[in-house]
Amino acid sequence: MPEIPVTAGPSAVDRLEEFATEWQSLDRDERVPAFRSLDPTMASDFFLGLESADRAALVGELIPQERRVWIRLLPADEAADLIQDVDEELRISLLALLDRNMRAEVEALLIYREDVAGGKMNPRYARISPEMTGQQALAYLRLQASEHIPLISYIYVVAPDDRLVGIISFRELILTPPARPIREVMNTDVVTVPEDLDQEGLAQVIQRNNLLAVPVVDPEGRMKGVVSIDDVLDVVREEATEDIQKLGGLEALDTPYFQTDFRSMIRKRGGWLSILFVGEMFTATAMSFFEAEIEKAVILAIFVPLIISSGGNSGSQASTLVIRAMALGEVGVREWWRVARREIGIGLALGVLLATIGALRISTWQLAFGSYGDVFPRLAATVALSLVGVVAWGTLAGCSLPFILRRAGFDPASASAPFVATAVDVTGLVIYFSVARLILLG
Amino acid sequence: MPEIPVTAGPSAVDRLEEFATEWQSLDRDERVPAFRSLDPTMASDFFLGLESADRAALVGELIPQERRVWIRLLPADEAADLIQDVDEELRISLLALLDRNMRAEVEALLIYREDVAGGKMNPRYARISPEMTGQQALAYLRLQASEHIPLISYIYVVAPDDRLVGIISFRELILTPPARPIREVMNTDVVTVPEDLDQEGLAQVIQRNNLLAVPVVDPEGRMKGVVSIDDVLDVVREEATEDIQKLGGLEALDTPYFQTDFRSMIRKRGGWLSILFVGEMFTATAMSFFEAEIEKAVILAIFVPLIISSGGNSGSQASTLVIRAMALGEVGVREWWRVARREIGIGLALGVLLATIGALRISTWQLAFGSYGDVFPRLAATVALSLVGVVAWGTLAGCSLPFILRRAGFDPASASAPFVATAVDVTGLVIYFSVARLILLG
Repeated sequence: MPEIPVTAGPSAVDRLEEFATEWQSLDRDERVPAFRSLDPTMASDFFLGLESADRAALVGELIPQERRVWIRLLPADEAADLIQDVDEELRISLLALLDRNMRAEVEALLIYREDVAGGKMNPRYARISPEMTGQQALAYLRLQASEHIPLISYIYVVAPDDRLVGIISFRELILTPPARPIREVMNTDVVTVPEDLDQEGLAQVIQRNNLLAVPVVDPEGRMKGVVSIDDVLDVVREEATEDIQKLGGLEALDTPYFQTDFRSMIRKRGGWLSILFVGEMFTATAMSFFEAEIEKAVILAIFVPLIISSGGNSGSQASTLVIRAMALGEVGVREWWRVARREIGIGLALGVLLATIGALRISTWQLAFGSYGDVFPRLAATVALSLVGVVAWGTLAGCSLPFILRRAGFDPASASAPFVATAVDVTGLVIYFSVARLILLG
Repeated sequence: MPEIPVTAGPSAVDRLEEFATEWQSLDRDERVPAFRSLDPTMASDFFLGLESADRAALVGELIPQERRVWIRLLPADEAADLIQDVDEELRISLLALLDRNMRAEVEALLIYREDVAGGKMNPRYARISPEMTGQQALAYLRLQASEHIPLISYIYVVAPDDRLVGIISFRELILTPPARPIREVMNTDVVTVPEDLDQEGLAQVIQRNNLLAVPVVDPEGRMKGVVSIDDVLDVVREEATEDIQKLGGLEALDTPYFQTDFRSMIRKRGGWLSILFVGEMFTATAMSFFEAEIEKAVILAIFVPLIISSGGNSGSQASTLVIRAMALGEVGVREWWRVARREIGIGLALGVLLATIGALRISTWQLAFGSYGDVFPRLAATVALSLVGVVAWGTLAGCSLPFILRRAGFDPASASAPFVATAVDVTGLVIYFSVARLILLG
């Protein structure tokens, strides 16, 4: 057998990888020339690998002749996603660039929201009839393959009225004896999803059932299309990015970091920052109630940041855990009490831990520098006891806020670390100064 | 054509979905009896749909006869993942339960770390030789299908010395004329990954190239196995969970919320909480330097929480954006200056925004209640000016910390909201009291 040379392939792939990384860091106006400089094969590989929002932005900046080439390269579901991402005017002119069949398919998809199963599905899929034999099915599949129907591991067995009656994998199909009818070998226990299932639910169905693709059916069980796992991979990533950004105390950006302009940055960050600031103003109000106490013992003011930040930090830990567990379906909406019961115990234990460190710190400074004079034992007791209270309360509030937000119809991920900190700072101050009034000031 | 009844299938699927949700919320000791109560089909569907860590925990609690059944159900790569997730002793007894061929495959996989391409790949894959004709290839594929080789959309064209020379999709294979050699129709431009590529990189390659599976090759280009997109979906989810938990200021849990016991919770949360607490102690030190200023104007203490929390919140926004952009490959390790330049502008703008709100608040209280007496104009100026400085500094520090952590070899995601807040609180205090010394106290 002749030696087969190692192909030049991998280096083209590496070049694509490299270009894609570079491109991400280009400014908006540098992108079109960079894209145009690619050779045709690499340009189409690159275009197909882009996320929908990036693709829409790019197509928006091209001239109509180029747009025609690129939009026609996409399968119907991805063309529909792109068209949903551009403004009204461009939408109409992009639709006009499609051929008649494709336009009809894309328009059918545009009635679905982009983030539900109907909007994610590809209306073209490999289908056979239950009455075909193994040989007929393979021949029919060959015909569909020549018409650019995507083949992703499963073939759908569909009745003449479009109802999905079974599914057969490639493996099973090529093992089916030529004369055997498909209905005798197909699997009838099919996982399907409704057209309006949201994308998070879609990801869970695919992941839990270990699928590579899932058929979308209407309430009568008629096939509408197929969602493939690679569409879901993008969803999982996008949803995680949104949650992470919300957890950082800002609105989700929708666009990559360097593509987000100054104005949107200020809007997405300034909004939440102002809300948090107004919330945090209550600390000034709370502290002014205790002005007399601070005047009597200025030393009290010194520990304010330490005490309230401990409540915020423990609260942020608890809320983060609950938010992610909710997103993954590990914790249900009705399990507040089950969570709260655990968290009270954990909060008290963590409070005792910090109280011990805090008391040690104060005792060390007293022994080394005599920093606190006569009030030392009462100060140490005040700080330690406040820490137990503040950390336990922070933990309980942190684990409860996602449930409260969800119940009120908001995204639980809005219970970000800054949000929780703001929510518990005022109570932290009240706990601290109340304990101080009792112990330190008698 | 006879009417085909709607199968009983979907309801079995729904029952599985329901059971999986319920199971997530069961305590550890309730899980084994629940699992045993399933009928065999549902039990195996459920077992195959579990994540590796859950599977390992479950198998650990079963008796040896049951373990044999379940571990033999898994493909080699998943069996290896499971075995890597249990302790040494159980590992050996689980390996002994496999048949000889499978044990050899699993042992070969165990030399790879679980989170690199070599550890994620399946060593069984559909392969053909470049010299085969279309017809021979299809016949050979049929043979492999009957031996339970998984078929995932692509067939790999491999030379006798195991070097990967090409790839062909199912679609292309069934369209290949019976007498045509595969080497004339195969694609030689193949995306491959090395055995030691980490799982984040693996996910990026699959996503960017829109693949359903990617071959793993050694430095000589020899096929070692195939990583399928469904393994990568789990990776993307796990990595996001880890990042989110780190961003909440705690160590990643590794196990679902309700499955994490009290002791691990205290360890994973108490560790970071103590570090943050010790860091935050410097605020007490910083404030004691300004004790004289506070004694002169107790009013200053009242705005401390408001000022420092604003620095923490703006810093947390900036660090979150940078961390996620780094994880998605949108921002490179060397782009600190490019990010910092943007963030300084954004930080100043956000600072001016909060300063305006702060000045308005103080003016309103002064007009309504005369709260601040003579010092009002100087107090308003102090608070406003400090806010601009604290927010701009918080933003700059927040966007820089992920770069610093990464440079020092840590995970940038450790620059969590609580971590950033702690890092900027001390500087926030210094800025505030320095401004106060200048403006308020002359």
